[in-house]
Amino acid sequence: MEKIKKVLKNDKFAAYNGIELLEISKGKATVKMEINENHLNGVGITHGGALFTMADYAFAAASNSHGTVAVAINASISYMKATSQGTLIAHAQEVSCNPKLATYTVHITDESDDLVAIFQGMAYRKKNKM
Amino acid sequence: MEKIKKVLKNDKFAAYNGIELLEISKGKATVKMEINENHLNGVGITHGGALFTMADYAFAAASNSHGTVAVAINASISYMKATSQGTLIAHAQEVSCNPKLATYTVHITDESDDLVAIFQGMAYRKKNKM
Amino acid sequence: MEKIKKVLKNDKFAAYNGIELLEISKGKATVKMEINENHLNGVGITHGGALFTMADYAFAAASNSHGTVAVAINASISYMKATSQGTLIAHAQEVSCNPKLATYTVHITDESDDLVAIFQGMAYRKKNKM
Amino acid sequence: MEKIKKVLKNDKFAAYNGIELLEISKGKATVKMEINENHLNGVGITHGGALFTMADYAFAAASNSHGTVAVAINASISYMKATSQGTLIAHAQEVSCNPKLATYTVHITDESDDLVAIFQGMAYRKKNKM
Repeated sequence: MEKIKKVLKNDKFAAYNGIELLEISKGKATVKMEINENHLNGVGITHGGALFTMADYAFAAASNSHGTVAVAINASISYMKATSQGTLIAHAQEVSCNPKLATYTVHITDESDDLVAIFQGMAYRKKNKM
Repeated sequence: MEKIKKVLKNDKFAAYNGIELLEISKGKATVKMEINENHLNGVGITHGGALFTMADYAFAAASNSHGTVAVAINASISYMKATSQGTLIAHAQEVSCNPKLATYTVHITDESDDLVAIFQGMAYRKKNKM
Repeated sequence: MEKIKKVLKNDKFAAYNGIELLEISKGKATVKMEINENHLNGVGITHGGALFTMADYAFAAASNSHGTVAVAINASISYMKATSQGTLIAHAQEVSCNPKLATYTVHITDESDDLVAIFQGMAYRKKNKM
Repeated sequence: MEKIKKVLKNDKFAAYNGIELLEISKGKATVKMEINENHLNGVGITHGGALFTMADYAFAAASNSHGTVAVAINASISYMKATSQGTLIAHAQEVSCNPKLATYTVHITDESDDLVAIFQGMAYRKKNKM
């Protein structure tokens, strides 16, 4: 797990955008993002790209948690609630995992525990160990 | 079109991440991103979140190009080619548009004109004019 | 709920393909399909279209369960396990619901309770009552 | 190409639902479906599952057209126009193809050449030849 954490800490895009890994365990991960002005779109709400990025980071953590390199092949996101401040939490949970492919669902919630977005990601698992 | 451009220029998340609007016309938009270190993930390739964000920005531009406020309701992205440097272009094209809902396809290409990712977005069109 | 059940019973495509509604309540529905030869694809496994259809039927039931007409606008499905016989169950669960849009997750499981496919659907809610 | 055609002709679910392969070539395929009563849902319009199935069949044909076994791993569909009669055509086109993964877009059009639905599918390419 230490090597994975190192790779995740080395994620420049997540760091640059203030997205932080809170927890990682087999098939699961949790990240947080405190919304600041740089996360907003042109109408002042949290950018879909910022939400996607935090979900994707949680997905990357969960999908690499088994110690085998996993790369994202596709993902989808649906938006439920607009936000513009506060702290968001993204929690990734493994739905299925076979030797080649694995799928994850990520829920993003706000401080009222309302669902902000739901994300589905699929990863291709390489043979390489981390 | 001037009001829309103003809203798009006001997109802090896109600006903060170096994503720039090149063109917008009815149902179409093109944006670019010069890959820099802050766009990379933990293994040194362009972050899925950065690709999604540039596609989403092109989608926002195209879906608001008719002068009616359109909000993203969901989106999906599939990744074809890993990149780590150079300039990426995202081009959004309207696929369908009715009074309530509209759909867009965005292609992201690199300097070799290879497809890096393909994005599909759906927007809900409000009654408000921009 | 009686009107909705009537509409669902009138679903010719589901009936023709042996897909049956088991239960419906606010925001939830369960359907079943006993796999027969007509559900198989060219390599002898349950067709993706058959799986999608049963998930879509559960989604239609759940999204119309509030008594307001809801029409599907998009859906995605990921496949986890190949099957060729036995009874499959699709269970739809509401994830979010606002006056205009609602989203649902459907899990399809086999007799071993293994996940066969996961489906996400989004519906547009009209003003008409059923 | 003869072996692939044989496998496709052996697709029981497509045949049972009146879906017919018209053409197949490297990375492309076209199928048709004449809408009949058994394709309709409870409100008398072509079922999302019938549209998905014809798109999926075109996708299966196109993704197996290289002579390497390809299995669907996920797919998404967005609906643009309701239909209840006439002939629908689904045309699949390869978007990307690497040794492991390939993606396809399928457009379904009606007799007025209007877009009825758009489908995106991703396939995992096995090592086996057909």
